[in-house]
Amino acid sequence: MLPWKACEIGDHIDDVQTPALMLDLDAFERNLTKLMGHAKGVRVRPHAKSHKCPEIARRQIELGAIGICCQKLSEAAVFAQHGIKDILLTNQVVGAQKLQRLAQLAQTIRLGVLVDDLAQIQALGQAMAGQRHRLDVYIEIEVGAKRCGAPAQTAGELAQAIASHRQLNFAGLQCYHGAAQHLRAPDARAGAIANAAQVARQAVKAVQAAGFPAPLVTGAGTGTFWYERDSGVYAEVQAGSYALMDRDYADNTAGPQDVRFEHALWIKTSVTSVAQDNVVIVDAGLKSLSVDSGMPGVADYDAFAYLRASDEHGVIGCPANQRPQLGQWLSLIPGHCDPTVNLYDDLIVVQQNKVVDIWPIAARGANL
Amino acid sequence: MLPWKACEIGDHIDDVQTPALMLDLDAFERNLTKLMGHAKGVRVRPHAKSHKCPEIARRQIELGAIGICCQKLSEAAVFAQHGIKDILLTNQVVGAQKLQRLAQLAQTIRLGVLVDDLAQIQALGQAMAGQRHRLDVYIEIEVGAKRCGAPAQTAGELAQAIASHRQLNFAGLQCYHGAAQHLRAPDARAGAIANAAQVARQAVKAVQAAGFPAPLVTGAGTGTFWYERDSGVYAEVQAGSYALMDRDYADNTAGPQDVRFEHALWIKTSVTSVAQDNVVIVDAGLKSLSVDSGMPGVADYDAFAYLRASDEHGVIGCPANQRPQLGQWLSLIPGHCDPTVNLYDDLIVVQQNKVVDIWPIAARGANL
Repeated sequence: MLPWKACEIGDHIDDVQTPALMLDLDAFERNLTKLMGHAKGVRVRPHAKSHKCPEIARRQIELGAIGICCQKLSEAAVFAQHGIKDILLTNQVVGAQKLQRLAQLAQTIRLGVLVDDLAQIQALGQAMAGQRHRLDVYIEIEVGAKRCGAPAQTAGELAQAIASHRQLNFAGLQCYHGAAQHLRAPDARAGAIANAAQVARQAVKAVQAAGFPAPLVTGAGTGTFWYERDSGVYAEVQAGSYALMDRDYADNTAGPQDVRFEHALWIKTSVTSVAQDNVVIVDAGLKSLSVDSGMPGVADYDAFAYLRASDEHGVIGCPANQRPQLGQWLSLIPGHCDPTVNLYDDLIVVQQNKVVDIWPIAARGANL
Repeated sequence: MLPWKACEIGDHIDDVQTPALMLDLDAFERNLTKLMGHAKGVRVRPHAKSHKCPEIARRQIELGAIGICCQKLSEAAVFAQHGIKDILLTNQVVGAQKLQRLAQLAQTIRLGVLVDDLAQIQALGQAMAGQRHRLDVYIEIEVGAKRCGAPAQTAGELAQAIASHRQLNFAGLQCYHGAAQHLRAPDARAGAIANAAQVARQAVKAVQAAGFPAPLVTGAGTGTFWYERDSGVYAEVQAGSYALMDRDYADNTAGPQDVRFEHALWIKTSVTSVAQDNVVIVDAGLKSLSVDSGMPGVADYDAFAYLRASDEHGVIGCPANQRPQLGQWLSLIPGHCDPTVNLYDDLIVVQQNKVVDIWPIAARGANL
């Protein structure tokens, strides 16, 4: 933890110590409003793994989101502690201790969780036995990402297994195609989601054939949600990065249907060394931004390129005639929001060059 | 922050909730002792950026380390708060607010900092004016990494500039070749450090020519420190990763002179999905390990490979006849210790399959 804060509310943006994680409030609010405007009849359940910030979740819900998604049980517990009442945990949970905590959490909020295996359903049923409030259980279907997810044709059998436990409520199908989100060409993304929707339809039919009404289908991310929305099969979208928008999403080539968002998240960084030719060194490295999806972008300077990162240094290539000075600050657009946000305790909210708020990233590090 | 701890002291290793950052106490202690045994007359100042953990720093000093290195001012402040009295901040510090804090910190501990620019020396001199205790100032020399560092021939001029400020103590030369640490071939590493030592010698001469006694030369990391130690020019080594040892360092081909360390740091992870063929899914992804230096290794299973990471999922390829079960746990060896440790609040210390201690990673997130 930082032994002091990077700034105080009311500070000028120039006075924020670096590196710092910054939120452009106006761009952020436009992103939130824009997504809701493009929901067009499907429910919105934004993924909170992108921001881990209860204040953002509250604002998303205030604008009409039905609730949020979380990716880990402890993350969901943090959001629940901060007043969020409807959470879909878009992940499998294993282990007796965690299942006990899951069962407890389901007594305090509306909680959903995923399964893709009969053994998980059995373990959930045992953990929930005797509990007063039921747990929503969603079957995760493999729709193309080859990560988790049961085959569509097994959905009926899994739904029956869920329904056999009194405290488990079969709530729907999770049909998220994560790998489709960053396919660069719009046609590739459209094709991947068309396939995902086709598999989702098969899963719906398998569930119906097992004697259930047509289940809710949920999924979709910032790179594709308009395809799922218009597919006729998805009833809920889970976009998360749209609120902040990273470089990796912006690198997708926009198709005619694309809903694009603004970079609201950035890292303020300072030049700490100008000793080498052709580059300057900044104070934001691997511990201030995640490079898993490539290097960050450098805002406002088209000719600059963040070339490489070490733990606490970033190397930025720049033309000799635009060389920034020692101590000058730059804004970096993270390659990937989610693991970058997870490095910071606070989000520094700026509007018109002033720090107008500091929002705790309360679920930072909550990976259990 | 985690809303609950992954375990309690006394728990069996099987009962630690996952993902969790684990330390094999015996391997760790052997690593600490081994480095000191190979110091052979040079001072050891381990880099604490690798562990960010005051308990580890205390043990390093207890075994004979002269002090520690830190990479950020706020990190140094955390270690100082936890009783560490001698810290070399192996980085440049810019900005009036930070320089003020630096000057304050130098009143409470022996503090060193790097410069590679006359303007920094001027700013340090101003910040330190009127302070009672002096600040150690080291000139960073560019010895091959092409990151920070002044040219060797300017060292005399910079030393004079430092000496012109009463509260600045010219303390030595930082000659760290970071880029050499992970050159795979021992000859390549030996060659890079031979060059670095040659440049360091030039810098020493430049300082002597400016009328100063031969300065202390400090530098070296886990991948090369025996070369610096034997160079005749370095008097202090700064290895950090040796205490924990990541996959990236282990991937270096060992030469006859190499001092090798054991993997003491690992991540306990659980299998959360077995729904796809040829892979299993684990609960340690990008928010539980850093992939900047490649994917983690999978301990104990030669035929397993951690193939890719998303935020909270890892995909592990495994042969059909060794497929782990749902809920089974595996140990991952992080690709890169430093940014991985920075994701966790606690280090879970294990010995003979029991949790024997939990050490706070107190400087986690301290990147100012």
